[in-house]
Amino acid sequence: MKNYLENINKAFESRARLGIMSVLMVEEKVDFNTLKDTLQLTDGNLASHLRALEEAEYLRVEKQFVGRKPQTTYYASPAGREAFKSHLDALEQLILNNRQKD
Amino acid sequence: MKNYLENINKAFESRARLGIMSVLMVEEKVDFNTLKDTLQLTDGNLASHLRALEEAEYLRVEKQFVGRKPQTTYYASPAGREAFKSHLDALEQLILNNRQKD
Repeated sequence: MKNYLENINKAFESRARLGIMSVLMVEEKVDFNTLKDTLQLTDGNLASHLRALEEAEYLRVEKQFVGRKPQTTYYASPAGREAFKSHLDALEQLILNNRQKD
Repeated sequence: MKNYLENINKAFESRARLGIMSVLMVEEKVDFNTLKDTLQLTDGNLASHLRALEEAEYLRVEKQFVGRKPQTTYYASPAGREAFKSHLDALEQLILNNRQKD
């Protein structure tokens, strides 16, 4: 039990962060508004989860101008991809363990 | 995307709560110290997660005396079992979606 729980990564615990990482695993880069629409989060909520993932160095941020408008895009770092995969493996283990007990 | 994320239940998000519910899905009743040892949590941390799950009516608490010692045991409510199974199904969906994209 303890073993696979240890591999569950607190950085990815919340639904919002699972969602953000899932999007960034497929899309190479995603801008703030696309994430917001896809995950149906408020600006503040999304921003705070993105900041936490950035501080953990699981994602990187790029700021640029598109015409005169600033645009912020996000992409998963290699460490973030690796860590998220381990997290999903741990969740899978948890699910399998629960299913065996049915 | 949004669809299966909606079924991820905030009440079960944390590693501690995933652990508590996993134990209670197998054991009919578990006392506080067994949970504490199994999940390697501090008293305060475990107590606060148990209280949250009790408030959500996902687990029930029973207090009794064993000899002169008070003992508190916990068991999953039918609603808790149902909700935890749905949560695991949603996590499985998330994992499958991520794997398909590899």
